Amino acid sequence: MADVLRIGIAGLGTVGTSAVRLLRRHADRMRKSCGRPIEVTAVSARNRNRDRHIDLEGLAWYDDPVKLAAEGDIDVFVELIGGADGAAKACVEQAIDRGLPVVTANKALLAKHGMALAAQAEAAGTTIGYEAAVAGGIPLIKTLREALAGNEISRVYGILNGTCNYILSQMETEGLPFDACLAEAQRLGYAEADPTFDIGGFDVAHKLTIIAALAFGVEVNPDCVHIEGIESITLADLKAADELGYRIKLLGVAQRTPKGIEQRVHPTMVPKGSAIAQVMGVTNAATIDADAVGELTLIGPGAGGDATASAVISDIADLAKGNRNAVFGKPAADFVPADAPAMQTHEGGYYVRLSLHDRPGAAAAIAARLAEQNISLESIVQKAPRSERSGSVIGNPVPVVLLTYATSEANIRAALETAIGDGYIAGKPQVIRIERE
Amino acid sequence: MADVLRIGIAGLGTVGTSAVRLLRRHADRMRKSCGRPIEVTAVSARNRNRDRHIDLEGLAWYDDPVKLAAEGDIDVFVELIGGADGAAKACVEQAIDRGLPVVTANKALLAKHGMALAAQAEAAGTTIGYEAAVAGGIPLIKTLREALAGNEISRVYGILNGTCNYILSQMETEGLPFDACLAEAQRLGYAEADPTFDIGGFDVAHKLTIIAALAFGVEVNPDCVHIEGIESITLADLKAADELGYRIKLLGVAQRTPKGIEQRVHPTMVPKGSAIAQVMGVTNAATIDADAVGELTLIGPGAGGDATASAVISDIADLAKGNRNAVFGKPAADFVPADAPAMQTHEGGYYVRLSLHDRPGAAAAIAARLAEQNISLESIVQKAPRSERSGSVIGNPVPVVLLTYATSEANIRAALETAIGDGYIAGKPQVIRIERE
Repeated sequence: MADVLRIGIAGLGTVGTSAVRLLRRHADRMRKSCGRPIEVTAVSARNRNRDRHIDLEGLAWYDDPVKLAAEGDIDVFVELIGGADGAAKACVEQAIDRGLPVVTANKALLAKHGMALAAQAEAAGTTIGYEAAVAGGIPLIKTLREALAGNEISRVYGILNGTCNYILSQMETEGLPFDACLAEAQRLGYAEADPTFDIGGFDVAHKLTIIAALAFGVEVNPDCVHIEGIESITLADLKAADELGYRIKLLGVAQRTPKGIEQRVHPTMVPKGSAIAQVMGVTNAATIDADAVGELTLIGPGAGGDATASAVISDIADLAKGNRNAVFGKPAADFVPADAPAMQTHEGGYYVRLSLHDRPGAAAAIAARLAEQNISLESIVQKAPRSERSGSVIGNPVPVVLLTYATSEANIRAALETAIGDGYIAGKPQVIRIERE
Repeated sequence: MADVLRIGIAGLGTVGTSAVRLLRRHADRMRKSCGRPIEVTAVSARNRNRDRHIDLEGLAWYDDPVKLAAEGDIDVFVELIGGADGAAKACVEQAIDRGLPVVTANKALLAKHGMALAAQAEAAGTTIGYEAAVAGGIPLIKTLREALAGNEISRVYGILNGTCNYILSQMETEGLPFDACLAEAQRLGYAEADPTFDIGGFDVAHKLTIIAALAFGVEVNPDCVHIEGIESITLADLKAADELGYRIKLLGVAQRTPKGIEQRVHPTMVPKGSAIAQVMGVTNAATIDADAVGELTLIGPGAGGDATASAVISDIADLAKGNRNAVFGKPAADFVPADAPAMQTHEGGYYVRLSLHDRPGAAAAIAARLAEQNISLESIVQKAPRSERSGSVIGNPVPVVLLTYATSEANIRAALETAIGDGYIAGKPQVIRIERE
């Protein structure tokens, strides 16, 4: 049996303490599967005296994670501090500089500095494991980096933020408005006091850049992601989607198109019968389209101490066996810059919900504007039509929902802008992209 | 860049030719991700002159796969011949004997000789990759063997045979009887001329033994699997399931229970809202319950040349990178014999469909027999009740469907046997186990 693999963990929050606990609970099993014992031998955190319900007796303690990375008697450095810069970046750079393999759950760090860190690791002859950084306990990184080696991937899309999926699920199943569901998510600890990072789509964007690098060989770069959050989704949208056979999910989508690699995060209509539409609550999911395997969907927990620690330990186990992969699946020099977001050229179906001034010719005018842009309608639903009300009240807005066949974003935006200019549309139309299986 | 990894493939059927094609199509990508070129340099098949739509020019040809394994200028031996014995077994043993790593899609071989081959590979300092042997293109082996290293698994269950799932899906969606759907599956090439191996559940049993070894450390042994096929499932069952909020799937289930490791293959009622219930047609799926990650579900193609070849290539890529895992996840000596099937102690809910002789007291007698065994009913549905027919016809059987809460198989069997003895039940009751999320 080979030597003990000594683990140093920087950051003893929920994930860090889970990792320590799980590594101890499963020590025997892991010794057998990895061919050597794995032991946490050193830790670093801000407050030594906080009760974490784990025994730190006998572990080397470092107040400074950079010092742990530089001097700790360890073989693997695990960074669970978080944040794109500061201590997390400093200690990871220090560990790589020393030639230590790094395991991290830090998507912000990788989204901002991933390419530089990958190049640094490559030069130092070591690697970085980050299964925990994307989709928590789902082995999405391993699947993209290893299992699909014999595939050309054409699209990866998924539910990559549990907070947003919880809120949308609650709105749909309980019929409660966005604000109430957000407050409930905050009460349950699923959403932060300042929820912008989650509900604005920025968290998904970070994860998506990592997925795009693995799937398409483009440099990790959050500036290349088109980002829309879920704040504008209303109960009316969820109800209309339901009636049309769809659900609304916040998706991250990375896709090869004739114009380049699209990376986009936005609320999306997905067919109710699709695997991804079934994913409710805080659960995450990702679907991969690839030439050899066809379609593959992975569903599981996207967050939580134990689930995320499970991913951290998966990386540690690979290192214990001596198994290595290039950080983003191939040498850093082989990556090309990501394409800047160019949503105007995006092609797909669209859901449009708008209010028409109840005037003769309004519907005809909208239809004409869409036709001018060569947009075909899959369906049109006009709710509470005039005939159902007692006496038509000219000028009272009438809600209309349109589903279009595939068209370009430029066309749909142009048609709506012209229609708004015509004066028939009250307020701002709601536009949601449709993602087909 | 390291030396070329030379691949020898024995068996050039659908999967073998797909593997050759994909390795060539993605040669550049794989050279970058694996750090070395991968080339098929030698092949073996029965008929040299058959047109396979791939160029075999320049490849060493062997009529005898054992000779390829023994003498080929190769670094990896890929066995795609099939069959538990004969040429497949002989050439795999030969390759291992020579110290070559083996990649195979052969579940029958592994189900019968897996432990012996694993011990042989371990002694020879090499390994066996078999991602393609279970669930085709779904990375289930990699997930169980690597990604869940930090977990104790409590249950793995899945749809592991596309033929059966296609037939059950067609029966449900088209309302056609079993025989018609089987014939259609045969016409489409989803089912063999002799379909017994698939529809009888034996194919799933082979895969399940491999899953149980990885998940629970029990020896691969098909004799330890309780097997029932889908031949007895009728449209009446599918309709009753639908009305009760369930779908019927042929599941393979490997589960840790207080009495040992259960391995069972049988038609199963799964809640319609579960991820696994959404899986229709030839698609496969597996759900894993584990202590750290919670619940993980993988959905994808379970068969097909390219999808299976994708799994074969995933194993080859790991070998090219120098990444190794113990065949069944830990040393062969650490395995314990699997528990013999003991379905009488199985605990779960049951669906029972039976025909009651339309006599006073029949329903009450059944209810009394169930109560005697401490079985509680979740629901009871009596179709075409007497009151709906014009004039009650004493003695005409009335269909009744019962759903029980969790009980033991022994109890439900005892209750039904006693009830049959009472003379109220016409024909043989249909009993289908319920699997909860």
